[in-house]
Amino acid sequence: MIDPTPDLDRLTELVNAIRPLDQAAVREARERQDRLTKPRGSLGVLEDVAVQLAGLAGRCPPPMPQPPAIAIFAADHGVHRQGVSPWPQEVTGQMVSNFVAGGAAVNAFAAEVGARVLVVDVGVATELPGVAGFLDRKVRPGTDDLSTGPAMSRAEAVQALLVGADVARDLIAAGAGCLATGDMGIANTTASAALIAAFTGTDPADVTGRGTGIDDATHALKIDVVRRALALHHPDTGDPVGVLAAVGGLEHAAIAGFVLAAAAARVPVILDGVIAGAAALVAHALAPAAGAACLAGHRSAEPGHAVALAALGRRPLVDLELRLGEGTGALLAVPLVACAARALREMATFDSAGVAEKEA
Amino acid sequence: MIDPTPDLDRLTELVNAIRPLDQAAVREARERQDRLTKPRGSLGVLEDVAVQLAGLAGRCPPPMPQPPAIAIFAADHGVHRQGVSPWPQEVTGQMVSNFVAGGAAVNAFAAEVGARVLVVDVGVATELPGVAGFLDRKVRPGTDDLSTGPAMSRAEAVQALLVGADVARDLIAAGAGCLATGDMGIANTTASAALIAAFTGTDPADVTGRGTGIDDATHALKIDVVRRALALHHPDTGDPVGVLAAVGGLEHAAIAGFVLAAAAARVPVILDGVIAGAAALVAHALAPAAGAACLAGHRSAEPGHAVALAALGRRPLVDLELRLGEGTGALLAVPLVACAARALREMATFDSAGVAEKEA
Repeated sequence: MIDPTPDLDRLTELVNAIRPLDQAAVREARERQDRLTKPRGSLGVLEDVAVQLAGLAGRCPPPMPQPPAIAIFAADHGVHRQGVSPWPQEVTGQMVSNFVAGGAAVNAFAAEVGARVLVVDVGVATELPGVAGFLDRKVRPGTDDLSTGPAMSRAEAVQALLVGADVARDLIAAGAGCLATGDMGIANTTASAALIAAFTGTDPADVTGRGTGIDDATHALKIDVVRRALALHHPDTGDPVGVLAAVGGLEHAAIAGFVLAAAAARVPVILDGVIAGAAALVAHALAPAAGAACLAGHRSAEPGHAVALAALGRRPLVDLELRLGEGTGALLAVPLVACAARALREMATFDSAGVAEKEA
Repeated sequence: MIDPTPDLDRLTELVNAIRPLDQAAVREARERQDRLTKPRGSLGVLEDVAVQLAGLAGRCPPPMPQPPAIAIFAADHGVHRQGVSPWPQEVTGQMVSNFVAGGAAVNAFAAEVGARVLVVDVGVATELPGVAGFLDRKVRPGTDDLSTGPAMSRAEAVQALLVGADVARDLIAAGAGCLATGDMGIANTTASAALIAAFTGTDPADVTGRGTGIDDATHALKIDVVRRALALHHPDTGDPVGVLAAVGGLEHAAIAGFVLAAAAARVPVILDGVIAGAAALVAHALAPAAGAACLAGHRSAEPGHAVALAALGRRPLVDLELRLGEGTGALLAVPLVACAARALREMATFDSAGVAEKEA
């Protein structure tokens, strides 16, 4: 059982701790970029990334965003029973075993970029007997069907938000200098579409994709399920926790809390794909300044993701048609973010290197 | 002095050693991708990269493309005297010093991705007294003005091609499992535009960009310079060395040779921006199968680069509006290529992990 009052107090405290970028550090970083031995602006988007890191850290140059750590939040979705996914629900728990055994794509990418992997059960429907090496923070064994009633209670949504916040806090306390979001949950692109439609006011047909691969008939059904959910709940974006409880998932809640805690600790957090984008909309609705800590790791092939990123004002760093989830797209961006920071930290200036500047 | 006959024999030998992808390994890699614990195709472009690496290596899974090494070929351009760049020509040599001292963007990125950096003077105009730590393979101190005569002789073009080939061969012999191209040369986007226009038949106005930053008047002048060069030389794409000698640069020649040697050794080579794209067109014209070894690291902001990549049939892995050169865009792609290979090598299959497959 949960006690909502202290939980809500903790959430409020977290939200109140979040501040925008430090504008003095932002200015200092911009000026430093223009003195480095390169044509002005020639590192493109990476110059903006480094400036953001400086503003987040409140100093220039910023610390290296290292070492990275990724949390994979796993949960199930009651809306699966509507037939929105061709995959059996059991795959969520089976993939938790695969993550722990190191056999998934996210494990391969994490090994390559040197990221610690933490797998968190925040709401897997199946039992996971004999599986060791993951964090058991199950709030409930999957959500209810969001197309026929609320996915979860408000208290459960807040509880899952705090699971994510605690995980971020603990990873940072253990030394992580950069966080990445990961997720696993069969049918979670349906909940993501509902969240994105609700928070951005976009028609469900424009934000509901084919997830991991569905046919035209299932896609049409999925759009209809999202449309019915919105008609049922009349989501009010002024009440982000209410929207999350009505149509979200437990992993969306956890990722939203993860983002809020990263922002409060002023540690960068790289968002993965459409699930993270939907969760970041929740975080943004609770604390608009949370976006200061967020970097968009990639743009997934899901149409709702581009809509979410536009609403968040984030440009994706990688755009390679990935549609896997797990955090794979966030991890690919880890070296890009590190390169951005390293250039601002380590490059010589025109003066120090004795390189002539462009003629006026 | 050079002796063109043995040089031409060596180039012919190099070209004849290049073979297309091994189709058996390509098929095996495609089949393996479909058994890994992920929805089919969900790693997007990275699945194609891993399949290419398998076909190049002739085995599945392919070896890891590690460790990476980058060669930065530096050279000057006689066309600089036409006023196509706002930077003094001395900056080429000054940047060689900066590379050797570790103060440039390419150094920061190389440190981050663990790449060895080799700086090669293949044609810097200025003397570099007191600068140590670079390879002196100067063919001549800069090209002649391509808008008033041939940039170099055919023999010099072949000699510079072989400098690049030797550098690739030596880096591979020293253990490099992946090569990346780098370049430095004030005014080299003008020569790149001329090469791209010549090899693709595109109008100079569509492939001539603003390089590291020029105003409208200089941009118009630069387009006119490229147009005059093409009118003067009537480049014949059936004679790639002739085109290269007429309108190319010494670093373009070296990079083309670097690509050919990588392809002959069946080691992947990641192309940087517009200079590498122009050079790869030379390599492709000499040996169409050389493309099998090439990966496009990024798409630069230069308009000619997209034209070159389209002609080469390569999709860029990074697209972040970089327009710096040096090899920065190639190095950013190093971890992406490594992740692609690692996923194919290390992921579990549905069978081995006990994960259920999607319902038919």
